[in-house]
Amino acid sequence: MHVAGKPYRTIWPSEKDSSVIKIIDQRHLPHRFVVEELRTVDEVCTAIREMHVRGAGLIGATAGFGMHLAALTAPEHDFAGFMQKAAADLIQTRPTASNLAWAVKRQLGAMGQETTLTAKMARAYAVACEIADEDAEFCRRIGEHGKGIIAELSSRKNGGVVNILTHCNAGWLAFVDYGSATAPIYAAHAAGIKVHVWVDETRPWLQGAKLTAWELKEEGIPHTLIADNTGGHLMQHGLVDMVIVGTDRTTRCGDVANKIGTYLKALAARDNKVPFYVALPSSTFDWAVRDGLAEIPIEQRSGREITHIRGLNEAAEMTTIAIAPPETACVNYGFDVTPARLITGLISERGVMAASEEDILRLYPEQR
Amino acid sequence: MHVAGKPYRTIWPSEKDSSVIKIIDQRHLPHRFVVEELRTVDEVCTAIREMHVRGAGLIGATAGFGMHLAALTAPEHDFAGFMQKAAADLIQTRPTASNLAWAVKRQLGAMGQETTLTAKMARAYAVACEIADEDAEFCRRIGEHGKGIIAELSSRKNGGVVNILTHCNAGWLAFVDYGSATAPIYAAHAAGIKVHVWVDETRPWLQGAKLTAWELKEEGIPHTLIADNTGGHLMQHGLVDMVIVGTDRTTRCGDVANKIGTYLKALAARDNKVPFYVALPSSTFDWAVRDGLAEIPIEQRSGREITHIRGLNEAAEMTTIAIAPPETACVNYGFDVTPARLITGLISERGVMAASEEDILRLYPEQR
Repeated sequence: MHVAGKPYRTIWPSEKDSSVIKIIDQRHLPHRFVVEELRTVDEVCTAIREMHVRGAGLIGATAGFGMHLAALTAPEHDFAGFMQKAAADLIQTRPTASNLAWAVKRQLGAMGQETTLTAKMARAYAVACEIADEDAEFCRRIGEHGKGIIAELSSRKNGGVVNILTHCNAGWLAFVDYGSATAPIYAAHAAGIKVHVWVDETRPWLQGAKLTAWELKEEGIPHTLIADNTGGHLMQHGLVDMVIVGTDRTTRCGDVANKIGTYLKALAARDNKVPFYVALPSSTFDWAVRDGLAEIPIEQRSGREITHIRGLNEAAEMTTIAIAPPETACVNYGFDVTPARLITGLISERGVMAASEEDILRLYPEQR
Repeated sequence: MHVAGKPYRTIWPSEKDSSVIKIIDQRHLPHRFVVEELRTVDEVCTAIREMHVRGAGLIGATAGFGMHLAALTAPEHDFAGFMQKAAADLIQTRPTASNLAWAVKRQLGAMGQETTLTAKMARAYAVACEIADEDAEFCRRIGEHGKGIIAELSSRKNGGVVNILTHCNAGWLAFVDYGSATAPIYAAHAAGIKVHVWVDETRPWLQGAKLTAWELKEEGIPHTLIADNTGGHLMQHGLVDMVIVGTDRTTRCGDVANKIGTYLKALAARDNKVPFYVALPSSTFDWAVRDGLAEIPIEQRSGREITHIRGLNEAAEMTTIAIAPPETACVNYGFDVTPARLITGLISERGVMAASEEDILRLYPEQR
């Protein structure tokens, strides 16, 4: 998508030197647009762990390039051992992110098919690019499938503005391009359908305020930022036509683990008969899991994300401020699980399906 | 309640000189504890308007003392004219706060019954103290009634910790003492019942992080601060035994207008069979209103409360930071309405009742 009118992806190999991987360091958004260069798997681990990059698709693509950088720097006498450690290190950075493990395993599998070190290294680069390209292409298709749902709501409103609420950032910044939850919005907007997005600010990390509002602004999509507490009130008063969110992990029965607070919006959507959609590339399906609430482990993050906030002070310097009494105990769960019963439909690159094992397997017969 | 081990109210006349009224200037919490002295009705108006004091009960009590200070400084030749102007000025400070107008009118009525200036001045002081004492006493009784509910949950858990979630600040800082939602918690704790409070930080103004967490800490109540998005996840995992919140306005049928986001917690409570209680002094009932969703107007506040946050920087100075792209459009609704169907019970100074017109009128037969 666009930044200041220029097309970008969130991760790309340097044109001059494929041993340098470039990312948008998202910690500086929305205040500064910073491109960072990564040269080692350790730098990639830091970038994932410290959230220079975040979001299911982008974490997967970054891990893919991380394995490529690992292969470039692995010692000849212990290539396999080094790669196993790199794989373990990468998977450790964000334990809830299933794309991460998936990308790492795909790289190990592909490299395992090659016999020479040179071939392994070349294959790792090719697979990293493949993972990134597939991610972008799958998001583009999600946009095409989801556009139909928005078009129908638009025609029911006689072409009036379709108000879409989203939580967190499942935008192009969370993937390689287009995004999952935003892809249908971008596709509808490009097709001339009038849309307006309610952006949950998404505490504690404020992905909505910092990332979603920024990317919608850069893309010229009308939007309004709200406190996470506001969505229920808007739905009670008919101000939301649909909800679209992303997912970090989806069970074979359609339960969805997404950013903490998603479940509350799903409850409000059901209470007010607002359709609630989840957009996802197929890689977020965890086919081994049926019951999201019982089986998906939920990452806990530092309480400091709750007691302290980072932003731009009046002198335009990045500053951290305390907003709670010192040493207040906090818990900071990163995700919650929205049960399938609250979800109107899932939108993947294969199409739109109900959040039920039966309908999911209709589009994924190979998982029967 | 206590600050650094010493008992306090939120407003009190100086022991040495009743023409000096002391308040806790809440703008500095939780970072600094500042007691401010008020000597004139103009100073009282500023304290209310600029939110040195806030919360329905405390605003009413402050206005009561404002009329007392006005009476002390009124010129003999135009006592009545001065008092009418003082009354109008006070009511102007927060035009939607119904306790404020109620306290001012109560003062005018009481003074009108006296004939001499000396008697009017003495009466104004007595009534100001009465209003404050009544507010504290009503909150104390809410605590006694609510304690029974917590005691029952405790005994069902064989004396295990009762986990209570609250939203916003309906603590003693919003009243003269005890608070509404916090009163049952303080009473249970004093009776030796083990409690733990989940404190919603309460965006955008962060009353939970800044005020509720602070007052619970000073009172020695175990508590954990959470992002507003977290409550649903906690309830799904059996980590919340009950919810208690306050209310700004309550309809005769039991709908409750409270801080934005309350409705989302009520939905999660119902979905997980967690009891959801609302604590209130009777003065928050609006007997003329039946349908909260259709009839209660919802205040909209500045979008700057969403795009900017104030707190303590690393040099321990109060600082404002921007957390969203500049000029992002925001909407900032102050309250939402929780329909009676989601509320397990109301706790007032008269007792515990179901959130239904029939059961409310059982305790308020004079409103039939």
